[in-house]
Amino acid sequence: MIVAPHMSVHPFSPLFFKTRAYFSAGRHVSYLKVNRVIEKKKFRLLSIMSSLRLSSRSLLLKRLYASFKPAPQLTVSDLNESTLEAKYAVRGKIPIRADELRSEIDSNPDGHGLPYDRIISANIGNPQQLDQQPLSWYRQVLSLMQYPTLINKISTLDKKTADSLYPPDVVERARKLLKTTGSVGAYSHSQGDITVRKSVAKFISERDGYAAHPQNIFLTSGASSAVSYLIQVLSSSPNAGFLIPIPQYPLYTASIALNNAKPIGYFLDEDSHWSTDPVQIRRLIDENKANGVDLKALVVINPGNPTGAILTEKDIAEIIDIAAEHGLVLIADEVYQENVFEGKFVSMKKVYAQLLEKDPETYKHVQLASLHSTSKGVSGECGQRGGYMELVGFSQEVRDIIFKLASINLCPVVSGQALVELMINPPKEGEPSYELYQKETTGIHDDLMKRASLLYKSFCAMTDVQCNKPQGAMYLFPSLKFTKETYSKLFEASEELNLTPDEYYCTELLEKTGICCVPGNGFGQVPGTYHLRTTFLPPGTKWIEEWTKFHEDFVSKYKN
Amino acid sequence: MIVAPHMSVHPFSPLFFKTRAYFSAGRHVSYLKVNRVIEKKKFRLLSIMSSLRLSSRSLLLKRLYASFKPAPQLTVSDLNESTLEAKYAVRGKIPIRADELRSEIDSNPDGHGLPYDRIISANIGNPQQLDQQPLSWYRQVLSLMQYPTLINKISTLDKKTADSLYPPDVVERARKLLKTTGSVGAYSHSQGDITVRKSVAKFISERDGYAAHPQNIFLTSGASSAVSYLIQVLSSSPNAGFLIPIPQYPLYTASIALNNAKPIGYFLDEDSHWSTDPVQIRRLIDENKANGVDLKALVVINPGNPTGAILTEKDIAEIIDIAAEHGLVLIADEVYQENVFEGKFVSMKKVYAQLLEKDPETYKHVQLASLHSTSKGVSGECGQRGGYMELVGFSQEVRDIIFKLASINLCPVVSGQALVELMINPPKEGEPSYELYQKETTGIHDDLMKRASLLYKSFCAMTDVQCNKPQGAMYLFPSLKFTKETYSKLFEASEELNLTPDEYYCTELLEKTGICCVPGNGFGQVPGTYHLRTTFLPPGTKWIEEWTKFHEDFVSKYKN
Repeated sequence: MIVAPHMSVHPFSPLFFKTRAYFSAGRHVSYLKVNRVIEKKKFRLLSIMSSLRLSSRSLLLKRLYASFKPAPQLTVSDLNESTLEAKYAVRGKIPIRADELRSEIDSNPDGHGLPYDRIISANIGNPQQLDQQPLSWYRQVLSLMQYPTLINKISTLDKKTADSLYPPDVVERARKLLKTTGSVGAYSHSQGDITVRKSVAKFISERDGYAAHPQNIFLTSGASSAVSYLIQVLSSSPNAGFLIPIPQYPLYTASIALNNAKPIGYFLDEDSHWSTDPVQIRRLIDENKANGVDLKALVVINPGNPTGAILTEKDIAEIIDIAAEHGLVLIADEVYQENVFEGKFVSMKKVYAQLLEKDPETYKHVQLASLHSTSKGVSGECGQRGGYMELVGFSQEVRDIIFKLASINLCPVVSGQALVELMINPPKEGEPSYELYQKETTGIHDDLMKRASLLYKSFCAMTDVQCNKPQGAMYLFPSLKFTKETYSKLFEASEELNLTPDEYYCTELLEKTGICCVPGNGFGQVPGTYHLRTTFLPPGTKWIEEWTKFHEDFVSKYKN
Repeated sequence: MIVAPHMSVHPFSPLFFKTRAYFSAGRHVSYLKVNRVIEKKKFRLLSIMSSLRLSSRSLLLKRLYASFKPAPQLTVSDLNESTLEAKYAVRGKIPIRADELRSEIDSNPDGHGLPYDRIISANIGNPQQLDQQPLSWYRQVLSLMQYPTLINKISTLDKKTADSLYPPDVVERARKLLKTTGSVGAYSHSQGDITVRKSVAKFISERDGYAAHPQNIFLTSGASSAVSYLIQVLSSSPNAGFLIPIPQYPLYTASIALNNAKPIGYFLDEDSHWSTDPVQIRRLIDENKANGVDLKALVVINPGNPTGAILTEKDIAEIIDIAAEHGLVLIADEVYQENVFEGKFVSMKKVYAQLLEKDPETYKHVQLASLHSTSKGVSGECGQRGGYMELVGFSQEVRDIIFKLASINLCPVVSGQALVELMINPPKEGEPSYELYQKETTGIHDDLMKRASLLYKSFCAMTDVQCNKPQGAMYLFPSLKFTKETYSKLFEASEELNLTPDEYYCTELLEKTGICCVPGNGFGQVPGTYHLRTTFLPPGTKWIEEWTKFHEDFVSKYKN
C-alpha cells in the first residue's frame, strides 16, 4: 500500500493528544471515552507520538496502519432489509428491460435486429413522453418565472410583437406570482409558499362547497412525497397496519415495506366495476384487530389506479364511517380527479364535510389526508413534480411532525408549486388566454377518452381477455383469462422461467412488439387471476393492432 | 349519527357473500379467511343479508354499525418514534418563530410594534431569498425549455430583436437539451436523463483527471435525497453506525434518526481551523467496534458546513485509508465545492482515483458516494432542486437497490436535471453568453467573499466571540465564549426557559433584531461550548451593525 506523506505538512490535531474529554453533542451521538477499548499496543504508540517530530510521527503512523487488510465490498446482506423487500413494478424488471431494448435501438438504429424500431412505454402514466403537448398557459407563465428579465424586455417591444410572444394575462400572472412567491431559485417555506397554499384552499372550497384552510395545505413533490410522509409518520411499529385496495398503485406497498409496516389488502370487486366493498373492509378490520394488528390508515384511490373505477358518494360515506369508528387515518389519493369519463368524481373531503356538518360529535376526529398532483389530469406535467396534500382533522402536534419531515426535505420544487397555482387557477372567461386554454384542455380530455375507449374495445375483442369499461384515470387493467386447464403450455413455460403467467405474457409482449406494460402481480390480484396494467396514452391505433396480433398469436401458441 | 342511505342503490358486493376464498395477493398482504374471528352476531346478520331486498339490507346495516363510538384523534404517541426523534434545527424552533414574526409584520406593516420591519433569514443558505440574482445563462435556457414554442416564435423576429431576448447559444443549448432530454413535463429515467448523466461524468473526469461513468451518476433533488437514499439503504439495524463530523449539517442526524440508526460523532478541531483528525476517527471506530456497533459509513462535508473548513489532500487520503480498512462507505458531501475563498478544493473522488491507480488491491473495494448540488456555489438555485450523486466502487446489486429507491420517487424534477447540465457545462470562451456569464459568476463569488470577510471581522471584534476565518461554504460558526463563571446570569436565564445559552442568545437575537440564525446545538458542539451558525449572505452592513449592537448590549446585561 502506498501511504501519502500526510504527516509532513498536516500534523496530528492537538485535539487528540490532549487528554481533554469529548462528550456527547446530543442524545444520540456516541461519545469518545479517552483511554478505553483501544488496543494497548496502538495506544502506547499513539501516546508517545505527540512528543515526536512530524517526520517521526509520519513513520510511526505508517507502522501502525500501513499493513491493513482491505475490507470487502458491501453485498445486499449488509443493507437495510426493508429496502430489499420494497417492490415497485411500474419501474421494475420489465420497464428496466424496456430501457435496455431502447438503448439497443438508439445505439444501433439500423442493425439492432429487433422486429420494431421504438419502445412504447405504456407502463407508466407519462403523457408528455408520448405525444401529449403541455398546456400553453402553464408553460408561458413558468417560462417568464424562470426568466423574469424577459418581462421587462418584452415590454419594450411593440404591443403586437409582445402579445404574440406572451398574452397580457400570462405576463400579469407571472408578475403576480413572482411578487408573492419570489424567485423560483429560492427555497420556499417547507410547507410550500403561503400564497399558493391560499389558492389551493380557495380551489378546494369552491370545488366542494366547504371551507379549506391554507395551514392545512402542504405543497409536495407530486403526490408521492405526501404518501411517503404519511406512511412514515404512521409506521409506529412492525405491527402497524395499512388497509390498501388490491389492486393498488405499488407506491403504497413499496412505502409500507420501506417502513417495515403491514399492508392489509382489501379486494376491489372486478365483477362489479372494481367497486369498493365497505363490508369486506369491516371484516378485515375485525379480523386484523383480533390478531393484534395496530391499524393506522385506510387508503382509497379515487379514481382508481390501476382500475379506473370511480367511488360513489355512498361508498365514500361508508368508508368515512369506518374511519370514524376505528380511528383510521383516511388517505384519499385523488390525483386522477380530472380524468373522469363516466360518472362523477366526488372528493372525500366533500363527503366528510357534509357528514361533519350533520353530526359533528361522530366525525370530529376523522383524520383525512387528500392528495392531488400536477402530473395527471389534462396537465400531465409529471416531470415538474408539483402536488399538494390537504390534512383535515389532525392535531397540531401530529401536523408539526409531518411539517418536520417536509422541512428535512427543505422544500418542494418552487416551479412545481407555481404549477399547482396555475392548474387550480386557470384563465377565466374573457381573459386573453381563456380560449386557447379551453381548446387545449378539451382536446386533451376528449383525446384521452377516445384512446381509452379504443383500447377498451380492442381488449374486449381479444380472445380470453375481459376488461371493465374505464370510468376514469389513465389505465386499463384487463384480466387475462388463463387457467391451468386451458393454458397448460403457458403455465409450464412460465414456471420454467420462474415467472407468473402475467409476467410471462408481459415479457413476451415487450420482446415481440416493444410494448411495455406491467403484470398484474405488481399491483396485487386475486390469486389464480392474471391481469396487466397499461396506460391508454400512446397515440394512434397501430400499436393496438400490433398488440392484438401478438395476443392472438400468443393464444394460438399457448392455448390447449 | 346520520347514516346515508347507502345500500338502496349500491348493493353489497357479491364478492363478499359467496364463500369464494380470497388469498394473499403478495407475500406481505394479509389474507382474508372467511368465517373466522368475526363476532358471531355480526356474522349471522351479514350472512342473511345477501338474501334480503336492498331496502332491508340498508336497515340491517344501520343496526349493525349505526351506534359506533367514534375513536379519538391521533396523538404523537401513536406515531413512528423515529419521526419524533429527528431534529432539523435549520428549519426548527427559531426559524418557525421567525416565520411568525414575518407574518406579524406582513399582516400589519404599520402597527406590528416590533423594533424592525423585516426578518433576515440567516438560518439557511438561500441566496436568492436575499438579494442574489440568478445567473442569466441558467434562466434563459430554462425559460425556453419551459416554453419551447417560443423558440419558433423568436426565430420569426428580426435578428436584432431575437438576439436581445435570447443570445443564439442559449437558443442552441435549449434546442439541444429539448432534443435529448425531451419535455420537462415528462418523467425521466429514475436515475436521471442519460445525456445529462453523460455530461456530469465528463465534468467529473475533467475536474479530477480520472474517468467517471454515466451509469454511476444519479441525478437527485438537491443533495438531500442522495443523503436520504444512502442512509436508508445502509441502516440495516438499530445497531448500524454512521460516523459524522461534529458540528455537522443536521440533515445527517435527522436522516440517521429517521432510520433508527446510530450517529457516531467525530469532533472537528476548532482550534485548528475546524480540521478533521483521522486519528480520532480511528479511535472512535476501534471503540465502537469493540462495543458491537456495525459501522456502515463515514460522512465528510468538504467544504465544511457549518464550519467553512476545507480538507487537505492528505487528510482525505487518510480518510480513504480508514474506509478501505474498515469497509465504510464514504459519503463525501461536496456541495460547496465552488464556494472556496482560501486554499483549494480537492474532490474525494480524485484522491481515491489516485490511490486506486497506485495500489488497486488495497483500494478496489472502497465505496464512495460524492454529492453535488445546484443549490449552492454561485448558482444558489435552491428552489430548483437539482443535484447529483456519483457512486464508485459499489456492486451492481447494491446500486440496484439505490436505483429502486430512486424509482419509488419516480424521478428528480426534470428542470432541475437540466440545471445540473447548465451548471457543469457553462458557455465557453468566444460564445455569445460567455462574457455575461463570467461577469455574473465572478461578481457573485467576489461578493460572497467580501460578505464572508466582513462578517468574520465583525465577529472577531465582538466581546467574547471567537471565529475561524472562513475558507469556504456559506456560513460562519463563531464560538460564544460564555461560561457559567463569567455569564452566570445568562445561564440562570436560559435554564429558566429550559434553553441552552446558545439557544437563548439566538432567540434574543431574533426577537430584538429580526436576525434569524441557528444555535450551535443544532449542529453539535463540544459540550460546554456554545456556537451559532449564520450565513454571511445577507447584503449590506446594516444588519451586522445591528447584530454588533445587540451583542454588546447582551454582554453588558449578562456578563458578571
